[in-house]
Amino acid sequence: MSSAWGDYIKISIFGESHGEGIGVVLDNLPAGEEIDMEAVLHQMARRAPGRDRSSTPRKESDTPRILSGFLQGKTTGAPLCAVIENTNTRSADYANLTVLPRPGHSDYPGFVRYGGFNDVRGGGHFSGRLTAPLTFAGAVCRQILLRRGIHIGGHVYAIAGVEDTPFDMVNVSAQQLDALSEIYFPLNNSEKETAMREKIEQARLSLDSVGGLVEIAAVGVPAGIGSPMFYGVENVLSSIMYGVPAVKGIEFGIGFGAAQLRGSQDNDPYEIKDGQVRTKTNNCGGVLGGITTGMPIVVRAVVKPTSSIAQQQDTVDLQKGVNAKLSVHGRHDPCIVPRAVPVLESAMAIGLMNLLAERGKL
Amino acid sequence: MSSAWGDYIKISIFGESHGEGIGVVLDNLPAGEEIDMEAVLHQMARRAPGRDRSSTPRKESDTPRILSGFLQGKTTGAPLCAVIENTNTRSADYANLTVLPRPGHSDYPGFVRYGGFNDVRGGGHFSGRLTAPLTFAGAVCRQILLRRGIHIGGHVYAIAGVEDTPFDMVNVSAQQLDALSEIYFPLNNSEKETAMREKIEQARLSLDSVGGLVEIAAVGVPAGIGSPMFYGVENVLSSIMYGVPAVKGIEFGIGFGAAQLRGSQDNDPYEIKDGQVRTKTNNCGGVLGGITTGMPIVVRAVVKPTSSIAQQQDTVDLQKGVNAKLSVHGRHDPCIVPRAVPVLESAMAIGLMNLLAERGKL
Amino acid sequence: MSSAWGDYIKISIFGESHGEGIGVVLDNLPAGEEIDMEAVLHQMARRAPGRDRSSTPRKESDTPRILSGFLQGKTTGAPLCAVIENTNTRSADYANLTVLPRPGHSDYPGFVRYGGFNDVRGGGHFSGRLTAPLTFAGAVCRQILLRRGIHIGGHVYAIAGVEDTPFDMVNVSAQQLDALSEIYFPLNNSEKETAMREKIEQARLSLDSVGGLVEIAAVGVPAGIGSPMFYGVENVLSSIMYGVPAVKGIEFGIGFGAAQLRGSQDNDPYEIKDGQVRTKTNNCGGVLGGITTGMPIVVRAVVKPTSSIAQQQDTVDLQKGVNAKLSVHGRHDPCIVPRAVPVLESAMAIGLMNLLAERGKL
Amino acid sequence: MSSAWGDYIKISIFGESHGEGIGVVLDNLPAGEEIDMEAVLHQMARRAPGRDRSSTPRKESDTPRILSGFLQGKTTGAPLCAVIENTNTRSADYANLTVLPRPGHSDYPGFVRYGGFNDVRGGGHFSGRLTAPLTFAGAVCRQILLRRGIHIGGHVYAIAGVEDTPFDMVNVSAQQLDALSEIYFPLNNSEKETAMREKIEQARLSLDSVGGLVEIAAVGVPAGIGSPMFYGVENVLSSIMYGVPAVKGIEFGIGFGAAQLRGSQDNDPYEIKDGQVRTKTNNCGGVLGGITTGMPIVVRAVVKPTSSIAQQQDTVDLQKGVNAKLSVHGRHDPCIVPRAVPVLESAMAIGLMNLLAERGKL
Repeated sequence: MSSAWGDYIKISIFGESHGEGIGVVLDNLPAGEEIDMEAVLHQMARRAPGRDRSSTPRKESDTPRILSGFLQGKTTGAPLCAVIENTNTRSADYANLTVLPRPGHSDYPGFVRYGGFNDVRGGGHFSGRLTAPLTFAGAVCRQILLRRGIHIGGHVYAIAGVEDTPFDMVNVSAQQLDALSEIYFPLNNSEKETAMREKIEQARLSLDSVGGLVEIAAVGVPAGIGSPMFYGVENVLSSIMYGVPAVKGIEFGIGFGAAQLRGSQDNDPYEIKDGQVRTKTNNCGGVLGGITTGMPIVVRAVVKPTSSIAQQQDTVDLQKGVNAKLSVHGRHDPCIVPRAVPVLESAMAIGLMNLLAERGKL
Repeated sequence: MSSAWGDYIKISIFGESHGEGIGVVLDNLPAGEEIDMEAVLHQMARRAPGRDRSSTPRKESDTPRILSGFLQGKTTGAPLCAVIENTNTRSADYANLTVLPRPGHSDYPGFVRYGGFNDVRGGGHFSGRLTAPLTFAGAVCRQILLRRGIHIGGHVYAIAGVEDTPFDMVNVSAQQLDALSEIYFPLNNSEKETAMREKIEQARLSLDSVGGLVEIAAVGVPAGIGSPMFYGVENVLSSIMYGVPAVKGIEFGIGFGAAQLRGSQDNDPYEIKDGQVRTKTNNCGGVLGGITTGMPIVVRAVVKPTSSIAQQQDTVDLQKGVNAKLSVHGRHDPCIVPRAVPVLESAMAIGLMNLLAERGKL
Repeated sequence: MSSAWGDYIKISIFGESHGEGIGVVLDNLPAGEEIDMEAVLHQMARRAPGRDRSSTPRKESDTPRILSGFLQGKTTGAPLCAVIENTNTRSADYANLTVLPRPGHSDYPGFVRYGGFNDVRGGGHFSGRLTAPLTFAGAVCRQILLRRGIHIGGHVYAIAGVEDTPFDMVNVSAQQLDALSEIYFPLNNSEKETAMREKIEQARLSLDSVGGLVEIAAVGVPAGIGSPMFYGVENVLSSIMYGVPAVKGIEFGIGFGAAQLRGSQDNDPYEIKDGQVRTKTNNCGGVLGGITTGMPIVVRAVVKPTSSIAQQQDTVDLQKGVNAKLSVHGRHDPCIVPRAVPVLESAMAIGLMNLLAERGKL
Repeated sequence: MSSAWGDYIKISIFGESHGEGIGVVLDNLPAGEEIDMEAVLHQMARRAPGRDRSSTPRKESDTPRILSGFLQGKTTGAPLCAVIENTNTRSADYANLTVLPRPGHSDYPGFVRYGGFNDVRGGGHFSGRLTAPLTFAGAVCRQILLRRGIHIGGHVYAIAGVEDTPFDMVNVSAQQLDALSEIYFPLNNSEKETAMREKIEQARLSLDSVGGLVEIAAVGVPAGIGSPMFYGVENVLSSIMYGVPAVKGIEFGIGFGAAQLRGSQDNDPYEIKDGQVRTKTNNCGGVLGGITTGMPIVVRAVVKPTSSIAQQQDTVDLQKGVNAKLSVHGRHDPCIVPRAVPVLESAMAIGLMNLLAERGKL
């Protein structure tokens, strides 16, 4: 199913960017979970555009209205539905998307897929705006996880080649993740923000865009979560994380770096520390055979540069069947990497909820 | 479900390395599909160990026996079950795995996950041997896809830092993929084999192992396959490909390389060529918004170095709760990258079968 | 998943009777399907209470607002979400449901299931009101089926022992079903309405309620739909039809009557008629081995008498742990059988959509 | 998926009646569960044909071989696969099934469904023989349930109009169910066996067959199991029970009898008894709103008369497109009702396993 995900805790996302509204249904949440909606809104604000010059000047009013599944501050156990109205839209910008598909966007494959009947205004159901309900859902889930001792946080690992300090995959702490998950431009080394913003500004001035990397970690997940072959942590998390637009690669632990290592370097030796079984390194990113080791889970995703750029690009005229030129107008982020952090944190939260539920550990 | 995968064409894999047998059930295959079992066995032989010095000297007799779903050379439409007996096993080698978990293996998380009741001999259900039924299932599926004009092939992209020529993501051809999918050590530039084998041999002599990269491509997949958000090509293929042991990262198209590009470089411009809509580049790996563009689908996976190495490693004694030392004996491949190629090709075939079936295109 | 159903066309229903709103998300609908929303509203009106004396005097304003997946009168292929606001509610009536569970209702098992956190006002997520979004979803699906030549209709088979003429399972026609699916109190023999209404009125005057039977048929479903064992027509239809509150039994064709027959009577002999393979009788209800024969599909469901009755009943005080007495106040239908007809027609429509989609026949 | 069932504990059944073998994979069983294989074989023997004159004289050697997931008498937590070889088959009897479809069988819809490629010998994948792996799977599950205090048993409720004493739905006991589940022709009133056997014998002498009813109960299921709308006990149990060939109707509690009752009669009043919340009657069959009340779960299924009868029947010649006559030769049970009891008990066991697992109660 395209827009529904989850075998245990299920999310069903709906909406098109310029339609009436967007939203999400969360099915099978445990009952009686207290949810701080202020904290949920804070996560949604981290994702929302228009916060500063590096993002699009649009103002979305992304305040979700909760229709069901939530009473007196707690989940009822029935499906929780949240709806976000679409208000500030300018449909005229998108008039000819079905004629001249934008490079890097889903316009052309979407046209083939839906026979031209899909709502293309603002990207329709493919719009990055659909990450708002995903973030809502994840923000609800992470509060439930937090109550079980699981902390999730991420940072901008790189933008346009400027790199932040990576997570210490052995020692990354709950406090560190909690702090990161509060801020808009999360970095382990906050001094890198200036250089990153410069890269973004340069791209903006060139009518261009830049991509980057996001690194997410979770601590507090007990050992023994996940199942072999196809319900391992990597299968489950990548399956939902590729639902975040612009993500084109996902790796766990040392990831692609393992190609260069020998087994003696890549293997994480065990030790007893404070009476616990731990690994001295964590190249596996907290997962072996699809199952958690109890060490931090670390995942990295590449976020491609924003596809909407004002530069003239080559495209085709689908009606006439000839080559054509296109400039994408409208308001677009030259870099969505910082905004992708809370979205990927949310995807991880929903993924972990499912993994825990599969083991009866929620 | 851990060992079952697929929403439309489903595989259910069973077995432990040193149990009675392993196998797979394929459910929902179309009826009347002619399957050349010789070709299936050839793919399984590419995966099997013991073919040359770079792989383990074990001889597996991996000939599957088909119990159902196949009559007079054709699928019947009922579930197709294939069983491979386990014969050549030496269980004594694995006696104390539950006491001293091997670094890099699932021994410890598996012990926690199953409470010590799982069959640990030879890795049990976590064994790389379970890729044999996966390869069988994929080899059946790729024949069905071939009849629909879809060709799948892959190559050893890198071993221990020695790189093969990558696929030309725009022009990779059916013929090229067909040829690659016939050979044991598939390379675009066959001259790289010597250097790669040297790296493997060096590792072997050092009682160590090496990892690498595998690149798989599919051509002939029509535009419009896949669905937005969670049933996109990337979600589906990564979900099954992470079922291949030792895979720790997956990327599509230019993948992690997109972090360094600007939008104007990463976007694939369209053109009309031979009356067809095509992209001039294929950085997206044939997938935009989760949906195929009609260009080659290209995916890359990292295969970590074999975890079983004869060197002494640090571990813990789970019974006594103290630090310990371990040397892994037995017969082990110092490099499984070449054998991972047919397995990942198979995973892609099963994944594409599901994506086509979702669209009613099988 | 409790409130989501469907492997191919999926519905996800949300809402509580006295919460903010209720609704449904339909995922994976084909794109470009024209939907006549007036016809959808007509089906919803058939389900709505308050139409005449035999039903509850509440006035629901059940007009759904479509948030997504629908543009210029056609489905877009993206998830279609419809929301119905809750307006006319009197919560005070339901204050102590968690203390004194109503016999016949889900109050007690729901209390145990949700630990007391579920919204009990008006039945919450268990309310018959949740059949409104189900009816909406089914009304959309039946229009899509109609375009493929499939007609669905049903009638009140019996109320309180007064029986309507059953369907002629061989000759029931599209015209007959279309006509039935227009009217509020659908009967094959409209003269039975008076006697049935008398039974309902007698029950109402006794502060009691009555149950009955509903019979639904579909014609135009081609032979060969459905799959053996667990995705047969009976499995799929019963799985969704038991989602309609008050249904406690479902049978196909002659159903329980087969217990009295010999094989020579029960078997449906084949014949060639107008060049078509047909059966002379249709005791199997159009389904053999889970697969359609091409004959009308006929299913019958029992609808238990309304559980909410004003008579005093025995219950327990869950707080004090002692026996207690209860009278259910509020506005309640003494008979919901006529209103259950469009709901069960809708459930069948959604079920058939899935069965057709499984075979790639949508 | 046709032959796979279960969202939490999954079974995947394979095989055709006259192919190499049949079997089942059980995925996601808890690890460390002791299984008494003698008891499993006993359940399979209850299902096997050829035990007495009322069943077919064929001798099946239905001893399953366990290939995986089971070690030293306990489940390992990995998929458990059991294979039953097909040995005693006479394929010649079934030569022209694709030409002259047998009334009451799936021959004709199966021919359309599979385009003539399905294995029709002995019914192929539609054969009643496929209930052997289903019974195996259920017999494993019921042992796991038994360890959690849940007892399942059933009886022949009626054959050809001769009725056994029904279960006392309030007071049916674990001891009663355990005793019933040991015997071949299970009856509450064993004196009815003679009359039932006479009916069967009369049918056999008339070259005919008879049907009947089976009633199954489970005690010990705690209150609060099941979920509203589509994962209720009725949805789940009917979904798997309709996988048993010949079942054409399923009802819970008083079932179709509720159509005749008033609410004041049908509602089950609560009482405190021995400190427990109980209902004084159990017309709901232990399920309200899809959720268990803690009272016995009672389900009834109709089993149609055996479709294979030696009398001449009307059919059509699918090749020539003309009417034809057919006599079904071979060895066939004139009544399969007693053998259906252990199969339906098994289906209930697998269903309950899923319902418990959904609530994290396994």
